[in-house]
Order: sequence, then C-alpha cells, then structure tokens
Amino acid sequence: MTIDVFDDPADTREEILAATYRSLRDHGYAGLTIQTIGEELDRSPSLIYHHYEDKDALVLACLEYLLEYFQDELGQGGVDEPRARLEELLEWWFTVDQEEEWGAFVTTILELRSQAVHDPAYREHFTRSDRLFSESITAILQAGIDDGAFRECDPEAVAETIQTTVLGTVLRRSSTEDDDWLGGIHDELSYYLRTRVYAKTVSDE
Amino acid sequence: MTIDVFDDPADTREEILAATYRSLRDHGYAGLTIQTIGEELDRSPSLIYHHYEDKDALVLACLEYLLEYFQDELGQGGVDEPRARLEELLEWWFTVDQEEEWGAFVTTILELRSQAVHDPAYREHFTRSDRLFSESITAILQAGIDDGAFRECDPEAVAETIQTTVLGTVLRRSSTEDDDWLGGIHDELSYYLRTRVYAKTVSDE
Repeated sequence: MTIDVFDDPADTREEILAATYRSLRDHGYAGLTIQTIGEELDRSPSLIYHHYEDKDALVLACLEYLLEYFQDELGQGGVDEPRARLEELLEWWFTVDQEEEWGAFVTTILELRSQAVHDPAYREHFTRSDRLFSESITAILQAGIDDGAFRECDPEAVAETIQTTVLGTVLRRSSTEDDDWLGGIHDELSYYLRTRVYAKTVSDE
Repeated sequence: MTIDVFDDPADTREEILAATYRSLRDHGYAGLTIQTIGEELDRSPSLIYHHYEDKDALVLACLEYLLEYFQDELGQGGVDEPRARLEELLEWWFTVDQEEEWGAFVTTILELRSQAVHDPAYREHFTRSDRLFSESITAILQAGIDDGAFRECDPEAVAETIQTTVLGTVLRRSSTEDDDWLGGIHDELSYYLRTRVYAKTVSDE
C-alpha cells in the first residue's frame, strides 16, 4: 500500500486537499495555517477560503477524502485467503523497516487524533474511521469461519483486539525512540491468532 | 489508583506543576499558556517565568514529576500474587465505567504524545515512560514464572503486548464515541493470557 491518493488531483478541490495533507505532514497540526497551504499550493489563501471556511473544515475534508479512499480500497472484492490476509496485515504493521512515506502518512493522521479529545467533529470522524477498519478485519475473520478454515470465535472482538494493538503500536512508534519491542508484539499476536483463530484442535479453556 | 499526586503541593514549584496539570486538563495543550496557568494559580505569570522558561519546559517538568511519582508507586514491594495483579490491571483499563477524574488524567497525558511527533524532548520522555510501565508488567510476569505459577514465555514480549493494547485502548476511548468494543478486547486479552501465561498444559504450537 503506497499513499498515491493525493498524487493526481482531478480538480481544484483535490489540489487543495493534497496541499493540506502535505502541509500537515511537514508542519504538523500546530504549524498548519491557510497561509502554509497556500504556499504549498502556490495559490493565494483567498482561493482556499473560497472553498473552506477555516483550517479545521479543511483538515476534516482531507480526513473525509482519505476515509472514502480507504472505503473504496477495502470494499473491493471478497476475501480469498483469510489467513494469508491476516498475516500480511500483521507483517505490514509490525515491520521494522517501514516505508518512510507510509510512516509519515500514518503519523500525520495519528497526530490529528489528539484534536478529537476536545473537538466533537474529529471524534465523529475517528469513530467512523475505526468502525471501517474493524469491519474490514471482521470480514476477513468471518470469511475464514464461513469456509471452515478458522475456529468459531467472536470475529468482532478479535478484530477490535488486532486493530487496537496496531493503533497502540503506531502511537508508540510515533512518540518514542524505541522500536525493539515491535518483533515481540508481532510474535505474540501471531501466537494469539494461532490459538484463537487458526488452530481447530486446541481446547478453548 | 486516584490522581492525588497534585492534591497537596509542598512548595511553589509543586504548586506551579499542579496548576499546569489542571490547565492542561481543562484547556488542552493548544489552549495552554503561561497566562492560563497564572490564572489557575492566582499568581502573576512572572512568578512562573522565574521558574520555567517557556510552556514546554513547564509541561515537560510536569510529565517528569508524574513519571517520578509512578516510579515510586510501582517500585514499592515485590509481586505477591502475579495472576491477581495482571487481572486487576486489565480490569482497571477495560472497565467501561471509568472514574471521571482518571479518564481526564489519562486523556490529558495522552494528548501530549502528539507533541512527541515533532519534539525530541517529548519523545525522550515518552520513551522512558513506556519503558517504566513495560518493565513493571514484565516484573509481574517474571515473578509468576519464577514461582512456577506461569508458563515459560517471553515476559518482555507479553508485557509489551499488554501495554501496547492498553495504549491503543486509551487512544480510542479518548478520540472516538464508541466504547462497546471494550469488553471484547478485555475477553480476548484474558483468553490470550490464559493460553500464553497461565495455562501450563496447552501446547505451545
């Protein structure tokens, strides 16, 4: 997965959103102003104000645009190989040598979560966003249960656990200097999935 | 655990840190100024500038003060009942009816993590803070392994997994409207600990 969503803006609105994302990535939320976005875009701030009333309206539109993008990506096709999909997902999130652009993307979005502490519009966004991602993991688990490859388990609870651990991992990577704990968590989540989801023979209790 | 750390400041420095915490809790990092802290303290901002050069020096001193407090709390005594301690820990973090004051405290500290994305001083703090908490969970696990109650496992990896899932949980609680997923994660982490840590008979593979 690369972040090509902003590579080829179709119109002025998409150009503004792409410039907002790049400004957020480079300056952080605190350093973001309509001015910095204008500079990134090489246009006058008045053009931006013509489309969006303030900085938060712009940031929220940018988040919404990304959410729609992921909704389309995740909604495509069924789940052919559920176990491979889950393992790929863990591989993706727990790799030490994360692609730099992807790391910057994830950190940029993560930083905006702190806005949700005090701003209901951001809370509403991240509520929907979390639901989308947990539903997509639930669908993988349900596909495995349906085709008999996975044990009967509570796919929603397993999905929420994976998603929340990934979120904690992303937060720690973005806010600390260590990452030597990454491999350990990957191993433990793999163990958990082996006993909870893949193994058909291990006793439940 | 209640947050009484700031209840009884011993000197002017502790009074300033207590006021900083309350200002952060009520206004968020973005709304925090030396002025708001002065108002909270009912003293002139110049008194604060006499002790701390700017807002971040103050916030970092406040975080450091809290870290020392938790270091003392966690360092007291040995680990008598490791399983009860682990279950208590999960019970604490996954309870739906969280004490309001505790929820506000956790959210206040969490919000500061986003500063670590762009500021190395905050990164350094959260690196040490994460190490402290994972070491304290590791010590509980090691005590259980040593006294034969727990299986041989990688206590550090298990500790990092618990800590990271808790961190993700705190982040989701602070930034979304849902909490109906909390019980599910509690159940799954309990299942994981039963098979990974407590059970002495379930096969490893």
